[in-house]
Amino acid sequence: MLSFELLATEGRARRGRLSLNHGVVETPVFMPVGTYGTVKGVTPRSLQEMGAQIILGNTFHLWMRPGLEVLRCFGGLHRFEGWSRPMLTDSGGFQVWSLGEMRRISEEGVKFASPVNGDKLFLTPEVSMQIQTVLNSDIVMQFDECTPYQTKGHVTTEAEARASMELSLRWAGRSRDEFVRLANPNALFGIVQGGMFEHLREESAARLVELDLPGYAIGGVSVGEPKEQMLRIMAHTPHRLPAHKPRYLMGVGTPEDLVEGVAQGVDLFDCVMPTRNARNGHLFTRFGDLKIRNARHKLDARPLDETCNCYACRGCGEGGGFSRAYLHHLDRCGEMLGPMLASIHNLHYYVNLMRKIREALDEGRFDTFRHQFAQDRARGIGD
Amino acid sequence: MLSFELLATEGRARRGRLSLNHGVVETPVFMPVGTYGTVKGVTPRSLQEMGAQIILGNTFHLWMRPGLEVLRCFGGLHRFEGWSRPMLTDSGGFQVWSLGEMRRISEEGVKFASPVNGDKLFLTPEVSMQIQTVLNSDIVMQFDECTPYQTKGHVTTEAEARASMELSLRWAGRSRDEFVRLANPNALFGIVQGGMFEHLREESAARLVELDLPGYAIGGVSVGEPKEQMLRIMAHTPHRLPAHKPRYLMGVGTPEDLVEGVAQGVDLFDCVMPTRNARNGHLFTRFGDLKIRNARHKLDARPLDETCNCYACRGCGEGGGFSRAYLHHLDRCGEMLGPMLASIHNLHYYVNLMRKIREALDEGRFDTFRHQFAQDRARGIGD
Repeated sequence: MLSFELLATEGRARRGRLSLNHGVVETPVFMPVGTYGTVKGVTPRSLQEMGAQIILGNTFHLWMRPGLEVLRCFGGLHRFEGWSRPMLTDSGGFQVWSLGEMRRISEEGVKFASPVNGDKLFLTPEVSMQIQTVLNSDIVMQFDECTPYQTKGHVTTEAEARASMELSLRWAGRSRDEFVRLANPNALFGIVQGGMFEHLREESAARLVELDLPGYAIGGVSVGEPKEQMLRIMAHTPHRLPAHKPRYLMGVGTPEDLVEGVAQGVDLFDCVMPTRNARNGHLFTRFGDLKIRNARHKLDARPLDETCNCYACRGCGEGGGFSRAYLHHLDRCGEMLGPMLASIHNLHYYVNLMRKIREALDEGRFDTFRHQFAQDRARGIGD
Repeated sequence: MLSFELLATEGRARRGRLSLNHGVVETPVFMPVGTYGTVKGVTPRSLQEMGAQIILGNTFHLWMRPGLEVLRCFGGLHRFEGWSRPMLTDSGGFQVWSLGEMRRISEEGVKFASPVNGDKLFLTPEVSMQIQTVLNSDIVMQFDECTPYQTKGHVTTEAEARASMELSLRWAGRSRDEFVRLANPNALFGIVQGGMFEHLREESAARLVELDLPGYAIGGVSVGEPKEQMLRIMAHTPHRLPAHKPRYLMGVGTPEDLVEGVAQGVDLFDCVMPTRNARNGHLFTRFGDLKIRNARHKLDARPLDETCNCYACRGCGEGGGFSRAYLHHLDRCGEMLGPMLASIHNLHYYVNLMRKIREALDEGRFDTFRHQFAQDRARGIGD
């Protein structure tokens, strides 16, 4: 089940509310990525405390490990990973695509060797729906082929992008049929492809809309294309999707990309950037980004962001509230607490950036917010 | 400042209360080890929630990184690492001893090359006191030489153990003099050495007692000697130390060792075992130990320990409460959340084992507790 209510708009930007089987999600929203049934480096408790409303799981990875026998025995992903709020799973299409040479794509589906144990496996729209039904995620993604921007230096041609987009459309139909056959009680989203070609994206969107799915995603962006190409597609596609249904921009992006995405009418985002960058010592703050490895932080007693309320910056009760100097030290010593605190901070930043965007939309001042955001981010983290 | 009050005794076992500059510590107590200014894999908040009263810092490692300039700028270790309760620091003696070939010991102190940057360094009783004064730990340990059990297969002779013990005694005097000269407001503990020789340990203890220090530790155990030798020293030395002063058994040990140590009159323990073993998938539970890597856990929906209240076993609020199957999966995937949850669980187990010991001593039933403990631990984790 899914219903979507539009609460407010400002230009193309939308403030909405998604009702899913495991709860309500206020949009626009950022969804932390939990590839293997865990958002890397943080507890479910931390995610709740920072206000995360919905998280992702990766169908392909969870199929490999722990496998369906385990997930079936837990009645799905929620109980297994200790997360009771909504969850979205991808279809596995992006991951098999990432296997590169290791996979063979046909009309039927994708044949590949398991990267875990070498087993020969065959992922099809039907299998993807079967796995996602076991996972019992609130939002199920259709099986698609992610059209590459380029392959070994060869930029995808229009003919190639069209063939790929049309394959994804046929797979959308098969995904929908299997989803219905399985009586999956959740919501199936279609994925718009078409590479960097606007007219292909329009055709993809129009034909997906004929399937009358409860939500639509924009796939095939953030796959190695130049930034201006991504921004071009972001400006083109989202607002052309049905206004009364949620729109999800897959795998995007920086804080600036999220604000731009909202301005273009996107409701849902996911990205590994906050957690992956955290583990590499790249911290996001209101006043710009900060590399904790830099020696300039050695004696700096300030928190990462004086305006931030996360556990890393503010602590709680009698403990915590950590300095840049301490985080620099943890990084230098390779101590686990370093990426733990950095992951909390970056996810908190992303999740709360979206909360501030929602508040701005509620109060009809998103445009003002955007300008202030750009100005703050350009200010720098201070000397 | 330090005062120590004996609240109850049962045989040699003692229930006490230590008052330190940063707060009160109920004994017997286990002190989690925070080598580089962080107890590996856990936040200060988790430590507070599990009831940790006092944690350790390692003088040698903190001297190397972040170094005294940083720690001085934070007024010591407490604010730097976000821990407001009591802290104990070792003297650096054990770590320079661990450098093996890389160090040269003389009457004056220990010359060695920094393992971080190769700098030539000289650690003496005076330098150790100066560093620990900067750290501002509540309990300061004298600089000592940790007498090895064996060196390259050569078991330490009585003459060698005597020479080493006497050097530590002279260093105890110099530590005390420097501690007084620095007007360090905290408590300095002496360390009994003497290897595996009871009469040397008695001599060491007697001569340390002449210095009238506020507490005494038993060092040079858990340094590679056979278990029965360790138990022999544990049965010999603690109860011979002054009854009205706290007794600290350094670097020990398993849950069984802790219960035995308490029975022999020990008040304070520290050990890396709960955190190190956690990172290797070795979990302690009321009903015996558990290797999470074992395939038997693959489908096991039970928590590590059904009687445990830690976040890993019970969760909190709407989230968490994790199964053996989930922890097995995290371990298999190399996910950070695995060691994070395992560290919380193992530390919680150690800290709360000591709480239960204190309650038993309060109620005069420590002997009954010991038998029940041994019986429970032998029961096994279930099939």
